[in-house]
Amino acid sequence: MRLLIVNPNISSGVTDLIEAEARRVARADTEIQMATATIGVAYIETRFEALLGAYAAATIASERVGQYDALMVAAFGDPGLLELREVLDVPVVGMTEAALMTAAQLGQRIGIVAISRRITAWYRECIERYGVLGRLAGIRHLDGPLRDPSTVQDDYAARLVELCHEAVQQDGTDVLILAGAPLAGLARSVAHRLPVPVVDGVSSALAQAEVLTRLRPIRATKGSFAKPPLKPHSGLSGTSLLHLVDGDIRTQQG
Amino acid sequence: MRLLIVNPNISSGVTDLIEAEARRVARADTEIQMATATIGVAYIETRFEALLGAYAAATIASERVGQYDALMVAAFGDPGLLELREVLDVPVVGMTEAALMTAAQLGQRIGIVAISRRITAWYRECIERYGVLGRLAGIRHLDGPLRDPSTVQDDYAARLVELCHEAVQQDGTDVLILAGAPLAGLARSVAHRLPVPVVDGVSSALAQAEVLTRLRPIRATKGSFAKPPLKPHSGLSGTSLLHLVDGDIRTQQG
Amino acid sequence: MRLLIVNPNISSGVTDLIEAEARRVARADTEIQMATATIGVAYIETRFEALLGAYAAATIASERVGQYDALMVAAFGDPGLLELREVLDVPVVGMTEAALMTAAQLGQRIGIVAISRRITAWYRECIERYGVLGRLAGIRHLDGPLRDPSTVQDDYAARLVELCHEAVQQDGTDVLILAGAPLAGLARSVAHRLPVPVVDGVSSALAQAEVLTRLRPIRATKGSFAKPPLKPHSGLSGTSLLHLVDGDIRTQQG
Amino acid sequence: MRLLIVNPNISSGVTDLIEAEARRVARADTEIQMATATIGVAYIETRFEALLGAYAAATIASERVGQYDALMVAAFGDPGLLELREVLDVPVVGMTEAALMTAAQLGQRIGIVAISRRITAWYRECIERYGVLGRLAGIRHLDGPLRDPSTVQDDYAARLVELCHEAVQQDGTDVLILAGAPLAGLARSVAHRLPVPVVDGVSSALAQAEVLTRLRPIRATKGSFAKPPLKPHSGLSGTSLLHLVDGDIRTQQG
Amino acid sequence: MRLLIVNPNISSGVTDLIEAEARRVARADTEIQMATATIGVAYIETRFEALLGAYAAATIASERVGQYDALMVAAFGDPGLLELREVLDVPVVGMTEAALMTAAQLGQRIGIVAISRRITAWYRECIERYGVLGRLAGIRHLDGPLRDPSTVQDDYAARLVELCHEAVQQDGTDVLILAGAPLAGLARSVAHRLPVPVVDGVSSALAQAEVLTRLRPIRATKGSFAKPPLKPHSGLSGTSLLHLVDGDIRTQQG
Amino acid sequence: MRLLIVNPNISSGVTDLIEAEARRVARADTEIQMATATIGVAYIETRFEALLGAYAAATIASERVGQYDALMVAAFGDPGLLELREVLDVPVVGMTEAALMTAAQLGQRIGIVAISRRITAWYRECIERYGVLGRLAGIRHLDGPLRDPSTVQDDYAARLVELCHEAVQQDGTDVLILAGAPLAGLARSVAHRLPVPVVDGVSSALAQAEVLTRLRPIRATKGSFAKPPLKPHSGLSGTSLLHLVDGDIRTQQG
Repeated sequence: MRLLIVNPNISSGVTDLIEAEARRVARADTEIQMATATIGVAYIETRFEALLGAYAAATIASERVGQYDALMVAAFGDPGLLELREVLDVPVVGMTEAALMTAAQLGQRIGIVAISRRITAWYRECIERYGVLGRLAGIRHLDGPLRDPSTVQDDYAARLVELCHEAVQQDGTDVLILAGAPLAGLARSVAHRLPVPVVDGVSSALAQAEVLTRLRPIRATKGSFAKPPLKPHSGLSGTSLLHLVDGDIRTQQG
Repeated sequence: MRLLIVNPNISSGVTDLIEAEARRVARADTEIQMATATIGVAYIETRFEALLGAYAAATIASERVGQYDALMVAAFGDPGLLELREVLDVPVVGMTEAALMTAAQLGQRIGIVAISRRITAWYRECIERYGVLGRLAGIRHLDGPLRDPSTVQDDYAARLVELCHEAVQQDGTDVLILAGAPLAGLARSVAHRLPVPVVDGVSSALAQAEVLTRLRPIRATKGSFAKPPLKPHSGLSGTSLLHLVDGDIRTQQG
Repeated sequence: MRLLIVNPNISSGVTDLIEAEARRVARADTEIQMATATIGVAYIETRFEALLGAYAAATIASERVGQYDALMVAAFGDPGLLELREVLDVPVVGMTEAALMTAAQLGQRIGIVAISRRITAWYRECIERYGVLGRLAGIRHLDGPLRDPSTVQDDYAARLVELCHEAVQQDGTDVLILAGAPLAGLARSVAHRLPVPVVDGVSSALAQAEVLTRLRPIRATKGSFAKPPLKPHSGLSGTSLLHLVDGDIRTQQG
Repeated sequence: MRLLIVNPNISSGVTDLIEAEARRVARADTEIQMATATIGVAYIETRFEALLGAYAAATIASERVGQYDALMVAAFGDPGLLELREVLDVPVVGMTEAALMTAAQLGQRIGIVAISRRITAWYRECIERYGVLGRLAGIRHLDGPLRDPSTVQDDYAARLVELCHEAVQQDGTDVLILAGAPLAGLARSVAHRLPVPVVDGVSSALAQAEVLTRLRPIRATKGSFAKPPLKPHSGLSGTSLLHLVDGDIRTQQG
Repeated sequence: MRLLIVNPNISSGVTDLIEAEARRVARADTEIQMATATIGVAYIETRFEALLGAYAAATIASERVGQYDALMVAAFGDPGLLELREVLDVPVVGMTEAALMTAAQLGQRIGIVAISRRITAWYRECIERYGVLGRLAGIRHLDGPLRDPSTVQDDYAARLVELCHEAVQQDGTDVLILAGAPLAGLARSVAHRLPVPVVDGVSSALAQAEVLTRLRPIRATKGSFAKPPLKPHSGLSGTSLLHLVDGDIRTQQG
Repeated sequence: MRLLIVNPNISSGVTDLIEAEARRVARADTEIQMATATIGVAYIETRFEALLGAYAAATIASERVGQYDALMVAAFGDPGLLELREVLDVPVVGMTEAALMTAAQLGQRIGIVAISRRITAWYRECIERYGVLGRLAGIRHLDGPLRDPSTVQDDYAARLVELCHEAVQQDGTDVLILAGAPLAGLARSVAHRLPVPVVDGVSSALAQAEVLTRLRPIRATKGSFAKPPLKPHSGLSGTSLLHLVDGDIRTQQG
């Protein structure tokens, strides 16, 4: 399987963290390609930033159509995930969705630890969009300005572990998710200090991408994930997004 | 009040329908400006198309920052609504949100009539995002290919009225929304043939924009609609979106 | 538009606060009439008191049938709102409903600040009745005996502002409602000290009444807000409520 | 136990049906008193009619304070139930609440059969108020004008049984409620023709009143069912409702 | 009525507590039989322990088929309740279900006080299974190792009362449940020290069993509580469970 | 990885179907062991049958403790899944849970096709237990007596495909689950005839077991999936279940 991992943020340091974790987990026959957004912000905390990230992810996905067998949107909150699932012919996975579905098989109530206060509203809405808000034990978060997203997990390791313990002790958490691409790989290194299983978004998404690829689900031709009906469009010619919208081109790619 | 109405679709015929309805309802002191997306599709039915529409709406909104006192996203499903509410200094309204909040004051269970089967999943998720799924009586829809979005309401008037009656008779609907910018103004012309109040997205959004402007709510500086924290960005210079992301520029605009 | 504002409590001091706020917001062409309940209690905190208030509001509404184009139930918790919406021929708005629908267009999670602990259960049930409990961030409240409802906002201004800050800081509130007719107008005077938009029940209801009047929705003849089916009645002749129940009289009024 | 059964409708024929069923079920030591509203309508189908019924029930309850050990509100939809539970010193039961809580112990999904289409919205909101909407399999109903509420169960027995079968066959109903005081006693006579247990509102409420009386729960002095805080009132002197509102009188009754 | 009360735990000391409370409440014509599990653990706190308890309860219920007119599962969390309701010909009640349905008629928001932290997750899932999670104000609990379940209520009476007060003061509780068979009877002795009504699982279940027996609901022959369809089975011959599974035997018992 | 697949039903024909599908999907390094219940019924359709199945599964799981690295409960409805997850040291997966979590990554609204009407209530409660009822588009089912569970998918292939199409056309299904171990492998053979992706319980559970094993989550020592606190027990010595309950033995196995 050729897996394209798209970091919808511009931070290449975070891309490195993602790649490192992904390679640790990937099967021998999984070939990983990385891509980093060239348009957008250093890390996504809000709905508007997620819109920028979703657009960037769609652009990258469309540029490389035909070059990958599955795609991972590698930012927590999954910008563009459901949108791309409509138009791509291959499985599309997201860090949040994959982490939630994996965690749900390890415990009933899921606790989330995040890197900022501001980011929590966006996460909450994302979990609600997936219809599993009833499984959420709570979201705990760091509460200060972050210097550099790619060093967050080193800078605040002790505090993050503390938040995990609070989530278990006070929120009734059965299983934890360390949320956000900047925390990629942290679950692995702190697991032994925690009292419940802990799930990482990148490794969950990688493993779930392998599952979906192996099960070879057919592409929807009906329902809300069939390709959008063809219709007049404008302003897309010359852009790669045209591949995802235009029927003639879609047929050639398909 | 200067109200910018953004049609996030490329169909100028639909822009005309929107404008006509908006002008019928607007107060004398409301000055309407229209804008039509130059990038995207003829009408939005899916999540991916909504992403294109949201991006187009954000681009237009950023190009004209400072020229309007309120902004209306004029497509049902409200592409980019919550996202823009984070970054703009003025009230932002959406056709779906405004129609739902208006309808909710006319009856308990809200029925929606839409222009295609495919569009219903996106609407349903939008209603869920606003937390009012429990108020939804049902969504009924036309079920064939549409030739031209700007003539839908003429082409299918009889069938649309029939769907309204079914919604009341079979779904327990107290109040109806005729959904989609292509149906702008239809509520006005068919109301007398219906057994319950019917709400139009454009006129609701216009009236709610006037309400929000009049009540002069302060701009959030905390919570999830405060402006996103400033952070490194890339690929935006030279684009109008920079106004919405960059602190220095924001200050000048603010 | 002739708007009848009914205070379902007996406190004329609160009626004055309501009127002052309403007049500040009303359009030039909105003619305001005030009415105060002659039966009932000084301020409504409980379900039983709300029943007394609803009955008083219905009595006033029936006495003046034909003299107003819209009616506002001016107590938080909206006693009698849905009931009157069934029987009156004109739009009926409530402070809570209007505040919630307005606030919902300014932020996702709504925080409420109230004047007593006891009142919070009734508010919560009211919000649940409107199907928007999922939007509620929390309810915070004063916690002592109130001397006089008409001076609450002066007596406790500092504490009320403090509660607002706590709602934002601890509950994840995006937008605030200062709840209760005794707080009418307070939002206006404290807004500049708050970090998120704040909504007032009276001004919201007034503005929404203007919206509903302008949009001229037809009267329901089916669904659960059509007039109740005619049926034998008793004990109402000689009372104004007869106008709302009896078919012959209804026809003359209609 | 002295049980006061209040029919909040004016139909004495229905009062007779209620009494007959209640006497069939009552323990030897349960002394039944009947009361019929003198103000209101023949049968309650809507929110407004329920307001009239609630007020009538409160008036009767206050007139006889001290003469009963428990009170049953004997109309489906329970007009005034929660309101009276705040102010009376004795257990208060309702037909809908008691039927739901009894039925819930006989099956997971509860189906309701009702006497008119219009009545279903009010029932649904009542079930929602009790927080058990998730247990509702569906509401099926007669769909024509009713001549006389006190003969409905005879006039439409066959159709009502048919509706019960449809509820089981098509809605996944485990247990049925025959809803509405006019159907009091019908469950008993048709049970043998039905494939699932069927619950009657009157006999459920009578039995639950006996339970609550026997368990002798203490009266709440805190929480939302403590008596409303004393406060200025008006227009109640000379009326029996004063007993429920005024502290001095309350103490004497207490 | 012959009522079989099954303690699905092995603790005979707790059986004694249950019996004492049951006898205090039972009508003269209710004949009580007690049974204690011989397989299982001292008290059930978890899902796995509940599985052991459910199996033990089913075994006892099957051994005595024909000897009782109603059955009570006498452990909080109701192990085996819905399962036995499918196969037995008589009403089956549970402590949690009965306590919830009784409490729901005394207040809107129900607070629970439990004997250990670990037990709370199982209770919460049980309440969710009954579809009344929306009525739950909160669960408060002792937080230390318990020496002997049959002396818990004596050992920790003061702390349990304190937890009750916290539930009212901090969670908005209207009515309390003292949860767990080890607390059987405590409600009776501490009620006078509490500010809201308090419900006991054993007495509630006993009273509800009497109600269900008196109302004589028919046995379901359709829906999800009809007897399971007959089908091949294995490993049950020689065990009493065969009575519940095998059609020939069922007929003889029925 | 050594994966123990437990069929909690006694039908060895179904065990064969499960094994065949599992082997088709398993990685080379996954070693599969099969086990079939010796106590219970031919296929589980009800809560009571699920209790028998759960007990049988627990017995098998305890007999082979130490011989497997992951365990699959191979009946739809997942009898004993959460219970075993508390007491085993290895990942435990279930067909329903795994199918739901896999399907959730392929579409928003999940449709289920089942082998009998009776089975649907149990499935619905299972989906509710996992907190994803909001994702359920509907459950459609065969509606006749089944001769042999191991030939259902051959006997009714055409009808099952028809039900799939109805689920997409009428319920708004985005992704399908063919539910029940008797349908193991059917998804693979009919996928090309369906308009949306279709998920199989066995292959989903196998793939998810591989994911959970690979991610090596730590064992919970707190929260509701930590091992149950040690306590007195009885009647288990000499049975394998003792391994799951007794501390001394647990340590030796651990």
